[in-house]
Amino acid sequence: MTLTPYQELEDRFRRINALGGAQSMLHWDMSAMMPAGGAESRAEQLAVLKSISHSMITDPAIPDLLDGAEGDHTLDAWQQANVFEMRRIWIHQAAVDSTLVEALSMACSNCETAWRAARKNNDFKSVLPQLEDVLRLTREMAAAKSSYLGLSQYDALLDTYEPGGKSADIDVIFSDLAAFLPAFTDHVIERQKSQKTPKLPKGPFTLSAQRKLGTDLMKTLGFDFNHGRLDESLHPFCGGTNDDVRITTRYDENDFTSALMGVLHETGHALYDMGLPKKWRGQPVGDARGMSVHESQSLLIEMQACRSPEFIQFAAPLMGEAFGGNGDEWSEENFVTLYTRVEKSFIRVDADEVTYPSHVILRYNLEKAAINGDLEMKDLPGAWNDGLEKLLGIRPKTDTEGCLQDIHWYDGAWGYFPTYTLGAMTAAQLFDAACRANPKIKPAIAKGDFSPLLSWLRKNVHNVASSVSTTEIVKNATGQPLNAEVFKNHLKTRYLGG
Amino acid sequence: MTLTPYQELEDRFRRINALGGAQSMLHWDMSAMMPAGGAESRAEQLAVLKSISHSMITDPAIPDLLDGAEGDHTLDAWQQANVFEMRRIWIHQAAVDSTLVEALSMACSNCETAWRAARKNNDFKSVLPQLEDVLRLTREMAAAKSSYLGLSQYDALLDTYEPGGKSADIDVIFSDLAAFLPAFTDHVIERQKSQKTPKLPKGPFTLSAQRKLGTDLMKTLGFDFNHGRLDESLHPFCGGTNDDVRITTRYDENDFTSALMGVLHETGHALYDMGLPKKWRGQPVGDARGMSVHESQSLLIEMQACRSPEFIQFAAPLMGEAFGGNGDEWSEENFVTLYTRVEKSFIRVDADEVTYPSHVILRYNLEKAAINGDLEMKDLPGAWNDGLEKLLGIRPKTDTEGCLQDIHWYDGAWGYFPTYTLGAMTAAQLFDAACRANPKIKPAIAKGDFSPLLSWLRKNVHNVASSVSTTEIVKNATGQPLNAEVFKNHLKTRYLGG
Repeated sequence: MTLTPYQELEDRFRRINALGGAQSMLHWDMSAMMPAGGAESRAEQLAVLKSISHSMITDPAIPDLLDGAEGDHTLDAWQQANVFEMRRIWIHQAAVDSTLVEALSMACSNCETAWRAARKNNDFKSVLPQLEDVLRLTREMAAAKSSYLGLSQYDALLDTYEPGGKSADIDVIFSDLAAFLPAFTDHVIERQKSQKTPKLPKGPFTLSAQRKLGTDLMKTLGFDFNHGRLDESLHPFCGGTNDDVRITTRYDENDFTSALMGVLHETGHALYDMGLPKKWRGQPVGDARGMSVHESQSLLIEMQACRSPEFIQFAAPLMGEAFGGNGDEWSEENFVTLYTRVEKSFIRVDADEVTYPSHVILRYNLEKAAINGDLEMKDLPGAWNDGLEKLLGIRPKTDTEGCLQDIHWYDGAWGYFPTYTLGAMTAAQLFDAACRANPKIKPAIAKGDFSPLLSWLRKNVHNVASSVSTTEIVKNATGQPLNAEVFKNHLKTRYLGG
Repeated sequence: MTLTPYQELEDRFRRINALGGAQSMLHWDMSAMMPAGGAESRAEQLAVLKSISHSMITDPAIPDLLDGAEGDHTLDAWQQANVFEMRRIWIHQAAVDSTLVEALSMACSNCETAWRAARKNNDFKSVLPQLEDVLRLTREMAAAKSSYLGLSQYDALLDTYEPGGKSADIDVIFSDLAAFLPAFTDHVIERQKSQKTPKLPKGPFTLSAQRKLGTDLMKTLGFDFNHGRLDESLHPFCGGTNDDVRITTRYDENDFTSALMGVLHETGHALYDMGLPKKWRGQPVGDARGMSVHESQSLLIEMQACRSPEFIQFAAPLMGEAFGGNGDEWSEENFVTLYTRVEKSFIRVDADEVTYPSHVILRYNLEKAAINGDLEMKDLPGAWNDGLEKLLGIRPKTDTEGCLQDIHWYDGAWGYFPTYTLGAMTAAQLFDAACRANPKIKPAIAKGDFSPLLSWLRKNVHNVASSVSTTEIVKNATGQPLNAEVFKNHLKTRYLGG
């Protein structure tokens, strides 16, 4: 039986997806299991798998098959969306020739190595030449993709992480936030001064007790251990495949509260992956929509649901039980204050919900300027410090707590940063819509029952997968396009008491 | 720069090897880490990787490259040996067309599933049709390989596991053993009746204490945790890659002695993999020689070194310390008796060093007859029971403790069994030669110092890799070809006191 072009594409993309799953598992192993001495052979395994995936996607037969499938009028909506995603994946790979891919990959490796030393020694100049190489090659790649995609160079990069995302839209939303946040943040911090200072419960807390509480709460949230695991790694992440989701955390013997919230954050990612439609496993349309929706799922669980008074009402006694804690610092009230503490700080990954967007907006503005040719890397430290001062009112004293802190640019991830805050805003908007659609969601959370929330998310986000755009997901689920209003209201309610 | 055919082959096999490493890691994960729900997607990942490996090896360019490299007179001995191994690998893959490979793989899957039920229900008839399918297709494969390799059908299968192995040679060695063992075994058992009965230390023994003792002893033996891990799985094995060796064990809370010896056994495998020459990583010539040499390394460590009075002198106090044990059953004398107890039993995997070869010789005789067309599968249970009675003097009452006990044939592994006993004999012969070459080896082991033994193995076995044949490894290292004499002498000395 001859396959139609569409069927042939499904077969090929299923194989490509299986290869991607293999790579994903090997990445997880590298971070969570592999002994240091395995690094070299693992790098070779991953490089070979990556080059095979690339040649499968850029196989000369693919363009004709795509043309054929795009002209096939018997396809249903999901199949059409599947072809649309295949075309997108193909463009991103085919637009860039393999010499450039290799040169960029080499430049990123070199730059990442130099960055580790530079950050440690607070020596931006030592990594500048490597960073300039990465930026130059990234701009070449952006130019190549730009002409294929009919997008600006920055948007062509953004599209890798946020399919369909446009900087023109982000500009509007981020300007709104940037105008709101400085005064708001000061207001919140001023108000907190008049409140009780939260106390961090005193450890040590055994890793096994932390692990047990984490897995118990993961089960409460709906994590299916028949299709996933919790392990440890230096940098927590959610990886694996949609049928076998591997999340990791990093425990601190003296502070269980941070790793615990980290576990819940990754659980939000995992619930999305696990909830993607089984019927479309292995096909592009059945995959997660993009980074902002993915981040919205982790932040909806962590920030919206699990830092809410309702969840803490449920969880505080469990924390006490888990570690045999009692006294003031184990009270519901203390945990609520602790988990909603706002402080201006230099490091993005340590930032709270209120100050986090300023860190992201800073990076977004800078990376857009760099890609557009309006910012040279030698001027990055000054531009960084000026930008942070304007947004957050504090100025880094060193580049280590400034433009050297994040791996992203040094590792070639340009166009990624905005998805963090788009995700935070999407989370707020989705959670608000969910609670309006089903007023039982919050009371259920207070009892440790996440099923009303999860079923709303399954229907409105997870099961939709990549069948429609991010914009449509948000609009269909919340009745309005993404905007800063709901997020701002959420912040006002939580931090200024309405 | 144009590559020579040899250089081009090195490149291609390096990539093929990296793919193999990826598969090996995914297999390890499947056994040691993967949640049950990941099975389906893992099977797909492995199937895709396997088919890509197959097409890389059978790429139409390979035969010309092999011809070119074989005619290249500038190659040194290792390079020539490398080409020889590449040709062997190519023959095994190219000899069999992909329809047959697929049919056999399907038949094995079906048969393995049916076997699990049949073994559980002691119902050989229920798996007979599937087993007949597997045998029929295996014989087709053997016929195809046979004409390429210029070997008998059985030897063509044996060559997969034991490159260069010949049943004519095995027949001679196994006949010798089969003539010796029955009377010897009775003699040993009779003698043990007059000795103290060993006592199994009473548990429970926590898994963490068992794990700690295991890893401590692994370090003593020379296992490099920078290049490997110890984990748990239902069926213990040694996997991963030569730079990242993953061994597993299965703990029993009520008996630490058996898992501990299992860990030491797998450590022997691991030391071999870790000791293969770094210079030839990723090339066929740099890989382990074959299954009998591999098994010789695990059995040399487990049976020759670690069940010796010298090792137990060192290890007995550590066992007592690890579990807070004292009293008779924790004495050196008791552990020596326990670890050299001989008993006739039906199950191969539970058998001791003396009775094990009879289990293997039985299977070797039967599988040879089956492949040669002299044994039909419907007659297997009777032939099995007759054979065991003749070799060991006991007759299974059920097929579950008879011809249904091992997965091998049902899973398509025909020609594998003899390597267990070839390995045991090779281990005895190598250990004997090592101790004669360096008389300090045994006294050092008594002090927990494995370095004299390990350095002999590194030089005579590990570093040799696949640069010469198994026969030559044994001859070069021990001064004589493999034969049953040294093994028989070892058994006489250990079990009849010289």
